[in-house]
Amino acid sequence: MADPQAVNRAKTDARQHHDPQIRGFASDNYAGAHPEVLAALALANGGHQVAYGEDDYTEHLQRVFRSHFGQRAQVFPVFNGTGANVVALQAVTDRWGAVIAADTAHINIDECGAPERIGGLKLLTVPTPDGKLTPELIDRQAWGWDDEHRAMPQVVSITQSTELGTVYTPDEVRAICDHAHERNMLVHLDGSRIANAAATLDVPMRAFTNAVGVDILSFGGTKNGAVFGEAVVVLNPDAVRAMKHLRKLSMQLASKMRFVSVQLEALLAKDLWLRNARQANTMAQRLAAGVREIPGIEILYPVQSNGVFARLPHEVSERLQKRFRFYFWDEQDGVVRWMCAFDTTESDVDAFLSAIREEMGR
Amino acid sequence: MADPQAVNRAKTDARQHHDPQIRGFASDNYAGAHPEVLAALALANGGHQVAYGEDDYTEHLQRVFRSHFGQRAQVFPVFNGTGANVVALQAVTDRWGAVIAADTAHINIDECGAPERIGGLKLLTVPTPDGKLTPELIDRQAWGWDDEHRAMPQVVSITQSTELGTVYTPDEVRAICDHAHERNMLVHLDGSRIANAAATLDVPMRAFTNAVGVDILSFGGTKNGAVFGEAVVVLNPDAVRAMKHLRKLSMQLASKMRFVSVQLEALLAKDLWLRNARQANTMAQRLAAGVREIPGIEILYPVQSNGVFARLPHEVSERLQKRFRFYFWDEQDGVVRWMCAFDTTESDVDAFLSAIREEMGR
Amino acid sequence: MADPQAVNRAKTDARQHHDPQIRGFASDNYAGAHPEVLAALALANGGHQVAYGEDDYTEHLQRVFRSHFGQRAQVFPVFNGTGANVVALQAVTDRWGAVIAADTAHINIDECGAPERIGGLKLLTVPTPDGKLTPELIDRQAWGWDDEHRAMPQVVSITQSTELGTVYTPDEVRAICDHAHERNMLVHLDGSRIANAAATLDVPMRAFTNAVGVDILSFGGTKNGAVFGEAVVVLNPDAVRAMKHLRKLSMQLASKMRFVSVQLEALLAKDLWLRNARQANTMAQRLAAGVREIPGIEILYPVQSNGVFARLPHEVSERLQKRFRFYFWDEQDGVVRWMCAFDTTESDVDAFLSAIREEMGR
Amino acid sequence: MADPQAVNRAKTDARQHHDPQIRGFASDNYAGAHPEVLAALALANGGHQVAYGEDDYTEHLQRVFRSHFGQRAQVFPVFNGTGANVVALQAVTDRWGAVIAADTAHINIDECGAPERIGGLKLLTVPTPDGKLTPELIDRQAWGWDDEHRAMPQVVSITQSTELGTVYTPDEVRAICDHAHERNMLVHLDGSRIANAAATLDVPMRAFTNAVGVDILSFGGTKNGAVFGEAVVVLNPDAVRAMKHLRKLSMQLASKMRFVSVQLEALLAKDLWLRNARQANTMAQRLAAGVREIPGIEILYPVQSNGVFARLPHEVSERLQKRFRFYFWDEQDGVVRWMCAFDTTESDVDAFLSAIREEMGR
Repeated sequence: MADPQAVNRAKTDARQHHDPQIRGFASDNYAGAHPEVLAALALANGGHQVAYGEDDYTEHLQRVFRSHFGQRAQVFPVFNGTGANVVALQAVTDRWGAVIAADTAHINIDECGAPERIGGLKLLTVPTPDGKLTPELIDRQAWGWDDEHRAMPQVVSITQSTELGTVYTPDEVRAICDHAHERNMLVHLDGSRIANAAATLDVPMRAFTNAVGVDILSFGGTKNGAVFGEAVVVLNPDAVRAMKHLRKLSMQLASKMRFVSVQLEALLAKDLWLRNARQANTMAQRLAAGVREIPGIEILYPVQSNGVFARLPHEVSERLQKRFRFYFWDEQDGVVRWMCAFDTTESDVDAFLSAIREEMGR
Repeated sequence: MADPQAVNRAKTDARQHHDPQIRGFASDNYAGAHPEVLAALALANGGHQVAYGEDDYTEHLQRVFRSHFGQRAQVFPVFNGTGANVVALQAVTDRWGAVIAADTAHINIDECGAPERIGGLKLLTVPTPDGKLTPELIDRQAWGWDDEHRAMPQVVSITQSTELGTVYTPDEVRAICDHAHERNMLVHLDGSRIANAAATLDVPMRAFTNAVGVDILSFGGTKNGAVFGEAVVVLNPDAVRAMKHLRKLSMQLASKMRFVSVQLEALLAKDLWLRNARQANTMAQRLAAGVREIPGIEILYPVQSNGVFARLPHEVSERLQKRFRFYFWDEQDGVVRWMCAFDTTESDVDAFLSAIREEMGR
Repeated sequence: MADPQAVNRAKTDARQHHDPQIRGFASDNYAGAHPEVLAALALANGGHQVAYGEDDYTEHLQRVFRSHFGQRAQVFPVFNGTGANVVALQAVTDRWGAVIAADTAHINIDECGAPERIGGLKLLTVPTPDGKLTPELIDRQAWGWDDEHRAMPQVVSITQSTELGTVYTPDEVRAICDHAHERNMLVHLDGSRIANAAATLDVPMRAFTNAVGVDILSFGGTKNGAVFGEAVVVLNPDAVRAMKHLRKLSMQLASKMRFVSVQLEALLAKDLWLRNARQANTMAQRLAAGVREIPGIEILYPVQSNGVFARLPHEVSERLQKRFRFYFWDEQDGVVRWMCAFDTTESDVDAFLSAIREEMGR
Repeated sequence: MADPQAVNRAKTDARQHHDPQIRGFASDNYAGAHPEVLAALALANGGHQVAYGEDDYTEHLQRVFRSHFGQRAQVFPVFNGTGANVVALQAVTDRWGAVIAADTAHINIDECGAPERIGGLKLLTVPTPDGKLTPELIDRQAWGWDDEHRAMPQVVSITQSTELGTVYTPDEVRAICDHAHERNMLVHLDGSRIANAAATLDVPMRAFTNAVGVDILSFGGTKNGAVFGEAVVVLNPDAVRAMKHLRKLSMQLASKMRFVSVQLEALLAKDLWLRNARQANTMAQRLAAGVREIPGIEILYPVQSNGVFARLPHEVSERLQKRFRFYFWDEQDGVVRWMCAFDTTESDVDAFLSAIREEMGR
């Protein structure tokens, strides 16, 4: 990997306040940006470019996204994942619409109610065993379209890869899309970690999105190595209107959008997105393999992405947290979440495994 | 000025799609980022930092902002100006609140209704001669607090410098704050171009904010040379609560916040913010001085910031627009807006003046 | 007029707390209900009827409204005028829509921001000389549909009769509708006092609504003699969807809707609506005629409905208010509003005129 | 019971469209109004009264409610139950607030998302065995107040009697209130059927509301025999502000409020509220007793209010529905809901029981 300091050449009055050698397992958002992405920012700098998305980088980005998601795809860069989700969900619902989602979905758990408050959306949630919806699970909420007392189910929202580190197969997504479309509902895919899913499945991203019927996508760049930057990707343009207005009124319109677009280009033009995702996934596999050999720790879900969920004694977790940062997922139940990022190294994982073994052995 | 390409050292798959030598007079948002700001991004990169604002850069940024805005100031970095305004206004209003503002205010004209739609706010607007409110103008809307049929005026929002390029003196802001506070209202200052105002007035930013009673501030970094990044600055902490929740639910919480904070540090740690603002202002003065010598063009407002508003024959403007980008402000009335940025050069202005003279002389 | 106590036959534990002989000129909302309307409530009572609008009275009401507004009309009873307006405006706008209205419109002045807060609507207001929009006035806000920074003008909302007591002719409404439709906008008519306008114009209500292009209507029953009860009337069904869901989510769905519907039937089945409106209008004419003979009082707008706006010395108004209830309209300017209702009598007006003469003569 | 036609004396152009002798078991909203309530409407009619709640009836109503709910109680009449709930919940939450509720709660199931869309509220729901929350169940959602990613739990909302016909004892409500208050949360009680609960418990309504710590109440009049009319009752005035503005902006402010207030007075001045509730409850007990003797039908929850939930063969329910109106509660599971109202008679119940026996016996 290139030297993270490589682009740091111009003098600046800002100072370095952190140790760039320290990494943990708390979140893929704890990582910084990939140096190639930073370099792209500099490339796009200088001169004047039309603000608010009519710049040359955003125009070019359309071609980049079409190469991944087909000729009908339209990309709308935004700031962050919550913004992408709320813009996308508004785009495919009416004022009276509701969204069917897993109860573990980010839109339900981690967005401080933004879908409800900003989008005016009702979430109809379903418990799932592994973060994944199925047609059967969807049917627990997919009814009552004519009943005005009920918020009208108009969209199914799935997450790929899920908040529990699991991954839908293309066929599973297709089944959900077919089921939804038959009931006149659309399908949104929260792709905050879409690259990790593609890396796991070893298929192009289109294979589990536009090719199987997903209508609109929240594309995640930040967790994949960007400084910041996500995008709403319209896969079914017949389903949406006025995306630009929706993005603006949702306060997700970047004035100097070239700097969002060029980051996404840096990730997607060739294979940086995939290299980053593979690194994170591989490190999660390495971590899981090591953990499986340690007696007394249970891995909870299939490790199909860049996260490992494990159950271990609470006091062990607490001691470990003094050495490496990570979060409890369900503290009462003793479950923790260990996340790998694009910059997680083999030695990071090995050092963490050593620490786990030590603390389990006390 | 440093070489805009200086930080571009790492290879990237993104390509350069624009000519970094071309600049116009359309908007300070058309400019890129100052190289020192880009350099700061790289400085903050590498290693893991707590996401969502508990990183070392955001912690340090508190000290930076306190050095500018006093010891009670609290800074909450956000993505963009509309986001800063809507978070700030929500923070100082109740569900039943209304905001008194000039009818030319960005919150009224340029935010696609986000204050109303996202914040649930009613705007009570007042026409002004020059974009500036006064106690007398405020009183046209400051009444009826007990009347439930009327949205309750709870905040006065002023812009510094204004959308018309004018600047409030500290005394003018103080008079507004006193007037508002006597009526139990708070004061918000949209400081999208706060640096330009400070440069014009040649006073510290505090002189027309916390020192004279402003309660909450939208601080602008983007137009001042950042890649992206603004902040809500709470100047009167007694007036607000739960800012972090408000920022999150308004979809303005950056996961890798260190990259917003370090940009603001790069601007504010020493004098980059002021250098950038002075350059833009000086170029606007140079432009205005040149224009005043051209018969047939009228400059409309005092040139106190980085913008020049002029009335000239419509066909002249249209010919000019083929050579330099700029916008009509009021096309029917023949009024245009010419904006200078931190990267506008003397030769840019001189070339533009030559073009104006040529086109006026035809 | 029938004895207001006529329907009071059953014993009740409630007591009478007011003097049913006292009437003023404050508001047509100060009046009670017409006895025929009360009688209709009793008629609809007893037995079980499907709740939430699938009762026999609401079904019949469709026929009643079609007799007034044509075969395409669809009526959706609601509770109050603000509710009718906000439901109707939501029905004809998207999430990004804006409403062009006179700055004196009830939706702008008197609804505590409900259109913005509940409907997420931006109001684009225009000053008018007499409360009436024109194509020219509309054009001050009808632009910028492709500009995402601007809330998109999608509806023109007019009030008939206006808040200033003036009335649009059918041709004036037609010109507005044509103008709006040519620009791909729809037209909403706030008919809180629609009956008074029809009485003044001496035409059927359809003549200035569906016949000239109005798309959706807030129909007012309360000021016309109902206990409570308004309706959204869809005149152009192609323009709207899911009205029932919109009404419900806007908290305007009455469970025992038969009691709203039967009131509207009582008003509209024959001519009670017109009798009531004519009485109020005639009394306003009588009042205006009397006032015109009193030196020193100026009548401000054409008296075309049930209200008289007058300018007179402030101290006279204050003395008068001790004898008859009415409101200042613009207290600083000495302007008052005198409203007549369906139950205003000739002797009420004559007594009030005597009082005005007395107080003016002091 | 008095003649339902008793108040029908004045002629009206409306006609009777239904058979006032037919009653079913579908909903207490299918019933009409109690004749004493209708009589009260007439009593309040005639003359002019200040609109929007400053009338003599609404003033008197304060005393009536204080006699039931203590000297600190403040009553705000509104139109309907959804309106009461959404106004009340807004009054006790901030913009970032969330509401903990049973997943069967009306606010979650039956209001088309109005709490989310209108109030901007996030609902944090909990499955319950019988519609009743407990401190333990509340704790499944009562956490994370400092976590900005999570909507902040600020209110616990309980329903009395519940949507499943069960009733909290005063001690159960007290335990919930204590638990909530210790965690700095407030308690809302949805009292759409509060009268039925008081009748069952045989205690004053205060015994399970203000006396045990409930902060705010949605008081139900409609299901108890009103034409329409509910009220938000503030029990803890320290917890709320600007109720009048909240009611108005929520489109729940009646212009002729005297007609809401006098209905509530008719119910509450003496014992009409209790007579009505007892009648409905007694009929539900009679129905349940009869059903328990019919083999093959299972009663699902304790019958503590005016509803009976039963499981019986689907085809039997369908045959029965052709004879008496009622709803499936969970059609897949064969569960139906049978509701009694204030006007349900012994012979209604006995006829229904006969029908059930017949259809079960086929």
